[in-house]
Amino acid sequence: MANVEYSKGLEGVIAAESSICKVDGENGKLYYEGYSIEDLVAQCSFEEVTYLLLYGELPNEREYTWFQKHMRASRDISEPIRHMIREFPDDAHPMELLQSVVAYLSGYVEHKIQHSAHCNCRDPLHQVVQLATVVATYERFKTGRSYIEPSKTLSHGANFLYMLTGEEPDELEGSIMDDCLILHAEHGFNASTFTARVVASTISTCYSAISAAIGALFGSLHGGANEKVMQMVDEIGDPAKAPAWVNRALDEKRKVMGMGHRVYKAPDPRATVMESYLHKLSEKNGDFRYYEILKAVERTFRERMEEKGKPIYPNVDFFSGAVYRLLGIPIRLYTPIFAMARASGWLAHVLEQRADNRIYRPKALYVGERDKSILPMNERP
Amino acid sequence: MANVEYSKGLEGVIAAESSICKVDGENGKLYYEGYSIEDLVAQCSFEEVTYLLLYGELPNEREYTWFQKHMRASRDISEPIRHMIREFPDDAHPMELLQSVVAYLSGYVEHKIQHSAHCNCRDPLHQVVQLATVVATYERFKTGRSYIEPSKTLSHGANFLYMLTGEEPDELEGSIMDDCLILHAEHGFNASTFTARVVASTISTCYSAISAAIGALFGSLHGGANEKVMQMVDEIGDPAKAPAWVNRALDEKRKVMGMGHRVYKAPDPRATVMESYLHKLSEKNGDFRYYEILKAVERTFRERMEEKGKPIYPNVDFFSGAVYRLLGIPIRLYTPIFAMARASGWLAHVLEQRADNRIYRPKALYVGERDKSILPMNERP
Repeated sequence: MANVEYSKGLEGVIAAESSICKVDGENGKLYYEGYSIEDLVAQCSFEEVTYLLLYGELPNEREYTWFQKHMRASRDISEPIRHMIREFPDDAHPMELLQSVVAYLSGYVEHKIQHSAHCNCRDPLHQVVQLATVVATYERFKTGRSYIEPSKTLSHGANFLYMLTGEEPDELEGSIMDDCLILHAEHGFNASTFTARVVASTISTCYSAISAAIGALFGSLHGGANEKVMQMVDEIGDPAKAPAWVNRALDEKRKVMGMGHRVYKAPDPRATVMESYLHKLSEKNGDFRYYEILKAVERTFRERMEEKGKPIYPNVDFFSGAVYRLLGIPIRLYTPIFAMARASGWLAHVLEQRADNRIYRPKALYVGERDKSILPMNERP
Repeated sequence: MANVEYSKGLEGVIAAESSICKVDGENGKLYYEGYSIEDLVAQCSFEEVTYLLLYGELPNEREYTWFQKHMRASRDISEPIRHMIREFPDDAHPMELLQSVVAYLSGYVEHKIQHSAHCNCRDPLHQVVQLATVVATYERFKTGRSYIEPSKTLSHGANFLYMLTGEEPDELEGSIMDDCLILHAEHGFNASTFTARVVASTISTCYSAISAAIGALFGSLHGGANEKVMQMVDEIGDPAKAPAWVNRALDEKRKVMGMGHRVYKAPDPRATVMESYLHKLSEKNGDFRYYEILKAVERTFRERMEEKGKPIYPNVDFFSGAVYRLLGIPIRLYTPIFAMARASGWLAHVLEQRADNRIYRPKALYVGERDKSILPMNERP
């Protein structure tokens, strides 16, 4: 159909206005509600950033006290949800479980659909909070351990590590985990956030929209890059072997995961922060192996690209897998952690979509036939 | 942001090419893969139409025998799924359950992601088939009855009625139920089908995509119109009262549900077929009350619109609720039945999307701030 022009994947097509997130790829800057990601990780908790994304402003002390208490009160999950986790097929992926659980949770809340962006977000918040509990509980059950009651005093990130391991993390680990959630909380339109907005545009529940977004993030073209980076790191095994590995990969035109980004032409600001966490954790553990492998990969890769005049930098996925590894988190949880963090951003987009809604109904370009006659079955080819 | 033009809700924007469905609104025609909906209900079963949507061609005898056997073998649901249904909160909506169950089912199948539209559709078919079992079982549990084993000999529609009621429907009822599924199996791009395509574009599983689409169909701007028509019918109660009811509704500028359609300017061909089923069932039951109320509503509504020079016709939702009522189906199952039927179309779109894929990633028009400074919490307003 060469006669009609359209943009595949809606590339370059504006789908909506948004004031939630600005990715400034030229300058390597990322803003949530106008605040730079560097400032947010330095000065705020994930709970504070969630408040920011949902209400558009940082909370004052009174607001934060109420919000934090409310978030922490929602951490527990009910027995039917625990049963779903326990019975989930062993070789299935936890993202499928998350998508299912969030839709199921929708059944537990009242469905007063709020069209205002500043609605009382009490109910939908459950899903942001409980995703962390579901992910930790999934891992516990999978490894033969029992359900652990959430802490009410730890930060969202630290509580996740506590529920996962059964031990309170030290301050460095807890704060890095919380910051990792901030770094992944929001990133403008992409397939999963767009999915959340399309579902929200029908005036479905927040849960339906976020469950759907999880389904999109599960796709291999969307989530999962940091898993592949760690598989690469494990395959390389030794910093000294990294240059040869990268050179061979490039010569064979294989993709080196975690390098380059569709939008960032300057360094990805999240990667810079993530690298500093990896350095700190390596220092604490007295083991710089992952750090050195990654830096060697980066060096070789960038040298090769600069020969072609293409400056390419690591993205957030390049360092995050190694950070999670040093926090004791298995690879299968990397994408679920992405979903745990991004739930805040998805919810912000659901509320923004509702505040000035039009149902998404694009057109298809019909390229098929018409007026075919049905042959009797025994005459069909 | 008056400077930049864009189309809200992507109205009029082409999102992809498709050969699955043509809605010819000007002429009141609907085609699946080039075959008119009138021919399909007259000559084919829902299973045959599902084959058509998935493979692009009607099956010959050998293909149909294999496909039908395969579909019918998938009707049973496992104990963990039954448990989810049993434990589902009593005041929740079955659409939330469906969205959750389909994602959960994803965990039971192998995830060989097939990029070809003519892939072996064996696994994803389960969800088309099992949705009917889940809906029937939900209703049975809700009304204190036990799980019933599916029949392997009845058509998809007749088996649904059998599982719902515990009694085999007569031939007329079984065939009308099966035809209702055909009439709802596909309708081009809309919010739920587009959701399925966006999720599929990340190369997520068919289950993830269909679960997400169910979430969109649950929205009050999308599914649910036939529920509201039947509420209207019940409120009117008597054919003689219909003209006054409609006149008052129009004078008060209230919406009369089931009349008019965004795309069909001529009569909705599905409504014409649906009306004939309602007539047949009314005749069989010796009770034309619903039929006469609806025809009186239609008459008065159209007279009023013709005074303004606007010819408006009933859409498919206008008659379908009354058909379901006469088949003994409670209102809460109307939208789930829509999902059961549309699953075939959604799956066809998932496969078509994969066959020539580009991930959906539209742009946002940023209308927010930048470079804000974070105030210490005790200085925030």
